[in-house]
Amino acid sequence: MLYIVGLGLGDERDITIRGLEAVKSCKKVYIEAYTSLLSFGLSSDGLSRMEKLYGKTITIADREMVEEKADEILTEASKFDVAFLVVGDPFGATTHSDLVVRAKKLSVEVKVIHNASIMNAIGVCGLQLYRYGETVSIPFFTETWRPDSFYEKIQRNKELGLHTLCLLETWRPDSFYEKIQRNKELGLHTLCLLDIRVKEPSIESLCRGRKCFEPPRFMTINTAIEQLLEVEESLGVSAYGENSRCVGLARLGYEDQMIVAGSMKELLDVDFGAPLHCLVIVGNTHPVEEEMLEFYSIK
Amino acid sequence: MLYIVGLGLGDERDITIRGLEAVKSCKKVYIEAYTSLLSFGLSSDGLSRMEKLYGKTITIADREMVEEKADEILTEASKFDVAFLVVGDPFGATTHSDLVVRAKKLSVEVKVIHNASIMNAIGVCGLQLYRYGETVSIPFFTETWRPDSFYEKIQRNKELGLHTLCLLETWRPDSFYEKIQRNKELGLHTLCLLDIRVKEPSIESLCRGRKCFEPPRFMTINTAIEQLLEVEESLGVSAYGENSRCVGLARLGYEDQMIVAGSMKELLDVDFGAPLHCLVIVGNTHPVEEEMLEFYSIK
Repeated sequence: MLYIVGLGLGDERDITIRGLEAVKSCKKVYIEAYTSLLSFGLSSDGLSRMEKLYGKTITIADREMVEEKADEILTEASKFDVAFLVVGDPFGATTHSDLVVRAKKLSVEVKVIHNASIMNAIGVCGLQLYRYGETVSIPFFTETWRPDSFYEKIQRNKELGLHTLCLLETWRPDSFYEKIQRNKELGLHTLCLLDIRVKEPSIESLCRGRKCFEPPRFMTINTAIEQLLEVEESLGVSAYGENSRCVGLARLGYEDQMIVAGSMKELLDVDFGAPLHCLVIVGNTHPVEEEMLEFYSIK
Repeated sequence: MLYIVGLGLGDERDITIRGLEAVKSCKKVYIEAYTSLLSFGLSSDGLSRMEKLYGKTITIADREMVEEKADEILTEASKFDVAFLVVGDPFGATTHSDLVVRAKKLSVEVKVIHNASIMNAIGVCGLQLYRYGETVSIPFFTETWRPDSFYEKIQRNKELGLHTLCLLETWRPDSFYEKIQRNKELGLHTLCLLDIRVKEPSIESLCRGRKCFEPPRFMTINTAIEQLLEVEESLGVSAYGENSRCVGLARLGYEDQMIVAGSMKELLDVDFGAPLHCLVIVGNTHPVEEEMLEFYSIK
């Protein structure tokens, strides 16, 4: 049996009793460390506190390991009980569908133990969950990479005096900018998940043919807003602007979580501290939502 | 201090360790019984199992009590620690923003302890959470009440040969039908939450001036699909139809949860058993999503 156990959002005490019982019953315990990172996963004594509470030795499974050794983990799970611990919910912001699909193909039984994830805990800011549109991810821009929607490509071609061949599809435009704009038109809130770069091979090392890793990077709310405003400035479609209302949330579910509501301009100057950060762009609001936002507003 | 503690989706063992510690430290413990109902809340020994595990006497707070006695609960919380237990996540499908707003106005400190809710656990069916559009609620139709969007009103007026005065607003149409249609156009999945009627005063009793309550009713997936198809037939805009792909989920997070993927027509004949039920109307899919749906498909 493979148990996929959600750990929730805070520390080792956010596991459920059902989850803890499952972990205690397992012969081998892995923790995924590649889609998200917990303070207790990162801090020096985090893993040992977890091992102490759960009464188990825990193997850290990074992205490479899960991709390369999934079959090994699943072979174990076909012989005895294995727990695979996941930050948040197993099917939260990043799904572990691939592992489940592989398990089912090998006829390994899977049991999922749910927990809180950013996708529901975001409700704490007072904006109702069913009034959110599609969620977007904001990636780090680099010197050589900028967002790349068809709109931006057409604009770039035009500026360069080039022709543009448009292939028509039934799928909709898919950049974060267009999703935010669409949500705005519908009066919906937008949850922006901010980039996390952990164990990324450095470009330099890829060129040299051996793997060295960049230090971990977490996008701050400030960087996200800077980038969002940069895109708005270059496109000028007014999906949002300096005065658009937002809520910035840092370390959601942790003891020291921080929630601040304000305009993009106002939030640019707020120090939200340690990761993880996320951002909500506010759509149309209900009076009760307004009252909640009021509590988190910059006075 | 007022602790608002999410209980998750299964039984009493789905509370988190953080949540359990909070409950144990409280002098008084309430459980809300009006937005959703747990099997363990409904079953005869459910509450006593919970009381035994948590080591506390638990007071059931129905809708009336929370609305009428909120100030009493908050006055207690200003003097000693009170826990308010909530099925799922405190800010899941139904938010408890109103209680939080009242608490903040009375300067009562509030601590939220998150857990899984339908809004993230729905990910278990394999459709990625960030590819969902707006969530909809499907209400029970009655003899005298049918869905009531502007579209339907215009159509009805037209059928009756009446003029229609249209007042223009910036807000978007708001019936579940239009939301499903909009999500479909965007290629997004739609989560349909199905009606729960608990402790509804009967119309008869309201007329007589004293409160008697209807027996609890939970909408099944079958009823939801029947109603959806009825609306589609009367509107004929082809937001969906008999052949639209759906996933039906019953008792999500429980030991005996049931997940079946198929067309609306196919799901009409499936017996999903005891409540709670919910339904997903599938949008455009990714290959990994397809593989997961395959496992849940009617063969």
